[in-house]
Amino acid sequence: MTISSFIPPQRTLMGPGPSDVSAQVLSALARPTIGHLDPLFIGMMDEVKSLLQYAFQTENEFTLALSAPGSAGMEACFVNLVTPEDTVIVCQNGVFGSRMAENVKRIGANLVLVERQWGRAVDPQQLQQALLAHPEAKFVAFVHAETSTGALSDAKTLCEVARRHDCLTIVDAVTSLGGVELKVDEWGIDAIYAGSQKCLSCVPGISPISFSEQAVQVIKQRKTPVPSWFLDQSLVMAYWSGEGKRVYHHTAPVNSLYALHESLVMLKNEELENAWQRHQQMHQQLAQGLKELGLEYVVPANERLPQLNTVYIPQGADDAKVRQYLLEHYNLEIGAGLGLFAGKAWRIGLMGFSARKENVALCLAALKDALVNA
Amino acid sequence: MTISSFIPPQRTLMGPGPSDVSAQVLSALARPTIGHLDPLFIGMMDEVKSLLQYAFQTENEFTLALSAPGSAGMEACFVNLVTPEDTVIVCQNGVFGSRMAENVKRIGANLVLVERQWGRAVDPQQLQQALLAHPEAKFVAFVHAETSTGALSDAKTLCEVARRHDCLTIVDAVTSLGGVELKVDEWGIDAIYAGSQKCLSCVPGISPISFSEQAVQVIKQRKTPVPSWFLDQSLVMAYWSGEGKRVYHHTAPVNSLYALHESLVMLKNEELENAWQRHQQMHQQLAQGLKELGLEYVVPANERLPQLNTVYIPQGADDAKVRQYLLEHYNLEIGAGLGLFAGKAWRIGLMGFSARKENVALCLAALKDALVNA
Repeated sequence: MTISSFIPPQRTLMGPGPSDVSAQVLSALARPTIGHLDPLFIGMMDEVKSLLQYAFQTENEFTLALSAPGSAGMEACFVNLVTPEDTVIVCQNGVFGSRMAENVKRIGANLVLVERQWGRAVDPQQLQQALLAHPEAKFVAFVHAETSTGALSDAKTLCEVARRHDCLTIVDAVTSLGGVELKVDEWGIDAIYAGSQKCLSCVPGISPISFSEQAVQVIKQRKTPVPSWFLDQSLVMAYWSGEGKRVYHHTAPVNSLYALHESLVMLKNEELENAWQRHQQMHQQLAQGLKELGLEYVVPANERLPQLNTVYIPQGADDAKVRQYLLEHYNLEIGAGLGLFAGKAWRIGLMGFSARKENVALCLAALKDALVNA
Repeated sequence: MTISSFIPPQRTLMGPGPSDVSAQVLSALARPTIGHLDPLFIGMMDEVKSLLQYAFQTENEFTLALSAPGSAGMEACFVNLVTPEDTVIVCQNGVFGSRMAENVKRIGANLVLVERQWGRAVDPQQLQQALLAHPEAKFVAFVHAETSTGALSDAKTLCEVARRHDCLTIVDAVTSLGGVELKVDEWGIDAIYAGSQKCLSCVPGISPISFSEQAVQVIKQRKTPVPSWFLDQSLVMAYWSGEGKRVYHHTAPVNSLYALHESLVMLKNEELENAWQRHQQMHQQLAQGLKELGLEYVVPANERLPQLNTVYIPQGADDAKVRQYLLEHYNLEIGAGLGLFAGKAWRIGLMGFSARKENVALCLAALKDALVNA
């Protein structure tokens, strides 16, 4: 078999991620590779750290870009902080909450599940009850923006509740970072991880993470080594740290970090609040159009993620055929349902660079056609 | 602080990796991002698998590109195969052998170290003795091309010895893949991992791995879950598998995989044997020139890696100043010593696209200047 260069088509990406990557970011990605210990590259890493502090709204010294996807970012938070003796309350309202629970199980820690119906936000009252029933709990973990359902949870309130019970918080911001209000320091989040390929519109493969001083202390006071060498953040800290000599841990994904740097510069220039507002505006335009097409949202209006619109597949429409039609006729990708919603819902993303008027217009026009002709 | 776009200089990369990335690969990297479940992308993943089978010289069904750097590839091999009851013989002759040992320790398995002087190849006799002393051993692990010292071990013989004692082999091919002879099936390697940024001259961040059928059986017969969810290859298999429906595990690093695909197409077009020969030829030219400059190799001639030339820093030369001079005056990166060789040796890489006549010429001319004027 002869294999030649792969030339992808120009798609419009309105699924659950990756989102559209701008020409500006792609062009940064393709700049000449330099050494990962080159003084100029180390200077760029410092800038990435500072830009991530802005994006997360934190002054956490321990803020960096993990050299792997968001699911590794999740695991890094759990394996560094949680030991087998700990009790962890995991709020579960979708696929990614289940994945958090899986992380706790593999560590061998005590798992307390606070389950909420898929498509709803996590309920602070339920969390409060679980905390009262489990005074031994040390951590509360939840997903800010559930990518499998499109539900936005009230991270600020959940963190308040957790703190009242002396728990540290672990927050999944994979889909929320850059798309909706998120204030790590003000809300008192202790460990947070995100993804590069959602509302930052960078290429997939990198996970921004940040740990509070208190979380860093927990890591420093561990009595047993972190089970994963690759994800051991005490080693990674020595690689990213600005103080003195960098200690080699692994080879950073140089070009992907160029792209992340560029996407964060774009976010800084737009300003966070404006990016949040843009996502909200595009969401409203899309929601209006989807309503006119007779599509119904899975999530109640006040718990919806602007950047991920989950709607029920209408009766008579063929899930796979509609998505294939959109791809073939319009080069438009929307997302299939995941987990409980597989075959029942579509997920329409408006993330980062995908949250543009032209994308909303295209999506509505193409869906209208597909619902009739697919 | 205002942060603007990062524009890296055009360096020549002759350190221990990343190596020079060609314009062809950078241009593939920057192609438009498409969805990681797009049928066209899945087709490309199948091609990557087939191209990796060629590069590894294997028909292993379980051959794929892990979405993280080589050190995660190493960990994936260990945590999937090794359980706390197992005894693992690790041959250690440099930094990366030590890292293998660290992996075994973190799993809590029994570690038997076969230590060899840094700068020398692993000794099959020593391995044989260790196997006789430890009939309970289940795995033998070693580094094919030790990036910290420039030593090439005889993987074929080491695998033969291991197999005679019914051990499975775990081999680090981070720096060897594409640069020196490597035949996974013929030599009977059971688990192998490599890096994208060495002799493949792709961007850093991806780790090609391959497991033999016997290794896959070991994974399937595990009684406890793999401690790492992210690196659990039974889940990753279902994402990469060609049979039936792909099961979502994480978002693949789409653009980095475009680049890997392109670098593998280039390798296939050049043909493996020619690539090995090119590395050897460039090595001989470089070695001749280094000798003329009065520099001495750390590794005996018959155990040297062509793609990584480790030479002692001559008396009177200032390590940091020379490297800085090369970088500032010639945009040329060579590698510092690592571990025991920090401050004592330089590592000059001739990996992949860096193994070119023009690079050898530049390196020798620049070094000659730097040794006098730095």
